[in-house]
Amino acid sequence: MDLAELAAVLAEAERIVEPDESERRRVAQVSERVLSACREKFLGRNGVTAVSIEGSVAKDTWVRGRAEVDVFVHFKVEVGREVLETTVLDVGREVLEELQGRHWLRYASHPYLEGELDGVRVNIVGCFDVGLGRWISPVDRTPYHTALINSRLTPELRKEVRLFKGFLMGCGLYGAEIEVEGFSGYLSELLIINYGGLMPLLRSAAEWRIPIFIDMTGKVTREEALRLFPQASLIFIDPVDPSRNVAAAVSKTKLAEMILASKLFIKRPSLKFFKLASTETSERPLSELLDREILGILFKVDETRPPDILWGEVKHTLRGISRRLEKEGFRVFRAGATISGDEALILYELSSLALPRAELRVGPPVWMDNAIDFIEKTLRRSERMAGPWVEGERLYALLRREVVRADELLRGWMRERQVAISNHLLKSIEGAEILTSTSGLVERVRRRPELMDFLREFINGIPPPIRHFERIC
Amino acid sequence: MDLAELAAVLAEAERIVEPDESERRRVAQVSERVLSACREKFLGRNGVTAVSIEGSVAKDTWVRGRAEVDVFVHFKVEVGREVLETTVLDVGREVLEELQGRHWLRYASHPYLEGELDGVRVNIVGCFDVGLGRWISPVDRTPYHTALINSRLTPELRKEVRLFKGFLMGCGLYGAEIEVEGFSGYLSELLIINYGGLMPLLRSAAEWRIPIFIDMTGKVTREEALRLFPQASLIFIDPVDPSRNVAAAVSKTKLAEMILASKLFIKRPSLKFFKLASTETSERPLSELLDREILGILFKVDETRPPDILWGEVKHTLRGISRRLEKEGFRVFRAGATISGDEALILYELSSLALPRAELRVGPPVWMDNAIDFIEKTLRRSERMAGPWVEGERLYALLRREVVRADELLRGWMRERQVAISNHLLKSIEGAEILTSTSGLVERVRRRPELMDFLREFINGIPPPIRHFERIC
Repeated sequence: MDLAELAAVLAEAERIVEPDESERRRVAQVSERVLSACREKFLGRNGVTAVSIEGSVAKDTWVRGRAEVDVFVHFKVEVGREVLETTVLDVGREVLEELQGRHWLRYASHPYLEGELDGVRVNIVGCFDVGLGRWISPVDRTPYHTALINSRLTPELRKEVRLFKGFLMGCGLYGAEIEVEGFSGYLSELLIINYGGLMPLLRSAAEWRIPIFIDMTGKVTREEALRLFPQASLIFIDPVDPSRNVAAAVSKTKLAEMILASKLFIKRPSLKFFKLASTETSERPLSELLDREILGILFKVDETRPPDILWGEVKHTLRGISRRLEKEGFRVFRAGATISGDEALILYELSSLALPRAELRVGPPVWMDNAIDFIEKTLRRSERMAGPWVEGERLYALLRREVVRADELLRGWMRERQVAISNHLLKSIEGAEILTSTSGLVERVRRRPELMDFLREFINGIPPPIRHFERIC
Repeated sequence: MDLAELAAVLAEAERIVEPDESERRRVAQVSERVLSACREKFLGRNGVTAVSIEGSVAKDTWVRGRAEVDVFVHFKVEVGREVLETTVLDVGREVLEELQGRHWLRYASHPYLEGELDGVRVNIVGCFDVGLGRWISPVDRTPYHTALINSRLTPELRKEVRLFKGFLMGCGLYGAEIEVEGFSGYLSELLIINYGGLMPLLRSAAEWRIPIFIDMTGKVTREEALRLFPQASLIFIDPVDPSRNVAAAVSKTKLAEMILASKLFIKRPSLKFFKLASTETSERPLSELLDREILGILFKVDETRPPDILWGEVKHTLRGISRRLEKEGFRVFRAGATISGDEALILYELSSLALPRAELRVGPPVWMDNAIDFIEKTLRRSERMAGPWVEGERLYALLRREVVRADELLRGWMRERQVAISNHLLKSIEGAEILTSTSGLVERVRRRPELMDFLREFINGIPPPIRHFERIC
């Protein structure tokens, strides 16, 4: 690694991630307007104790062009969840209408209001005013997070946070939502604080061995943490709540991609790691698809539902179908899904779109009571190809499969409800188009640019960090 | 089970296995002629102490039409192996020529002379006259075996032995040679003595759980036996030599077939179990072969070599190729081999005669030093289809296979010596015809009735005991 080159890359990256003066001014104005309007409307309402700005704007850690103003309305615990929710939604709507912003309802742990003002995203969220550790709703921790981060960040570290967030974005690793299963903003800030900057963090990450355990509080031992979070690949103890893993949403695959991205960036620093490659992914012709065995399922989704819930259902369905395919004897090399507007596309790359005609039926050992039964039944089957025969102490037979094509089988399983599909998606999956690389998948998707891009990326099958590295080589 | 029916079947079976008076006379005459001629020529030769008749004729346990007269020439230990061998072959040849019998050389543990006289097979074998347990050559035990069996068999038990041998023959389970891996004559006799008759034996065998341990001597415990013979499926301690397993040659598969045959015969007693089904195996048309994925290897063998050695090599080669196919990704459902004259045919039934075009390449975990190396190399490969991608903590890629057909791949492995083939067969296997069900296997084999029968049986894939049962159903 050439240090001058690295410094040059980081200097350029800073220009990508640092908001310029006009953006800062615009964000500050929007924040002030929303904050004062909210104070005016909310304070004095039943149980409201305060209104504050939280999140990346309050921490001054947002990435250029990605500002979101999070307004938190604090409630006394005594008012209860229902009053909190209706007050936030009713009054919030009033506020945004008065300010002439667009707005719509969102759900996370509970409903909140999302709006847009002067090109800046605004969220109005209700939380309970509780002491440390007495959380009622998950967002009750947020004001403590803001305070903690602000107490630890210097102007220099804020730059490093933005660089790291930009790096994560460029590598497709930013965001704790189910679609991404990556790194949240708060986790990014904590990591920078813990390591003191981007490069020390990346140099450490390049040497990480999963599972990783990090605790800035010194209150939890590695052994305790591994017992508390046995499934976690990355454990970062929340300094505000030592019983919580800040990195719970990070999947093993995404953590491994982060480790890899660190190694690759250190080996060949490049601005590309800070830019999420868009559509220009694949120069390879789509005709290549013809010798690939790809199964596609295209179906409608209700885009008004919360994305995390919808993505959860799509991923659950993706896994359910994958398991069913493998149970039947297909080899699933890879799987992926995308949601574009009101359509979702799930893709599988298989070793073959058709099963072998012969299916090995494993019978009982000869000494079992049902051995003769197996022989009699097998001999009577019209689909018997060979056997029953004996190998070792067990009986076997080969049966002829009637249906061997993945698309035909899948259609049957859906009809018979023999595959795990999220309840909410059942209806639309039943009306799904099941397409294969040999049956017009490309033709069908060609009309939809986003789906087409996803298909191209799937065919290429290279995640962003490696894609960046490839382009540099 | 209808007892009257069973009795009728056994009475008929007896007629199949019991030699008639004329056969008995002929065998007695041949025995006497050979024995007196051998005595005349051998006694007085250097180190020869006695000449005796051994084996099934001496024990009166041969199955009708299957008599073999085994003449044993006993030598003092002091003469050594070489003198024993040359004396047996030279003098034995003289004897058989004087008696005007045909004769030829054979090998087992050491060379012996085989001949034919008046339609009866004659073997002239040399053994050392040793005390119990001081065996030099394996056949030194034989006179003790003969004596032991004769001391325990009654006329009634001799009938039972013949019935059991006939049952094993009818089920393709008779013979300790590598081709069969079944039950020897001596083992059959011991089993009948141990259980007191055919039906008690079959009723016990129907309940057997592998491994089986039988010791008539009471000298060996089950634990000791399992430690001494850890690979054995059936352990029958030799009453003449407690350190030896009489059933060492019985494969697990053949033992399981014997267990199954017992169950099936008890369920549906039938004379069919005493008749080895010949060619009339399959009524199914050979056109069925077209949707079967069968790979055949047809090659020359030297038929003058000892069958056990040749069969050992063919089976070793069958397993070597099978392992190579599976290592490459083929699924081998079944395999079989036959030798007919100077040709051998090995058959495999595969899930598919072609591998998938895509091959999953499993790379290192991302934290390994060679992770970047794997990425760089994979990206440079012209056969890259997809990836490298990350799943869990590991890298993967899909590569395009150039050669996917089993016959083409096999030809390449043979050329490059990348498959375990017995040394003696190497040359002829290199000149082998590699055929598939889609490339003229049937056409090629149709001209050779024995190979054709074997192919038909292989396609049907039902061992004799189940075949008999099927015909009764």
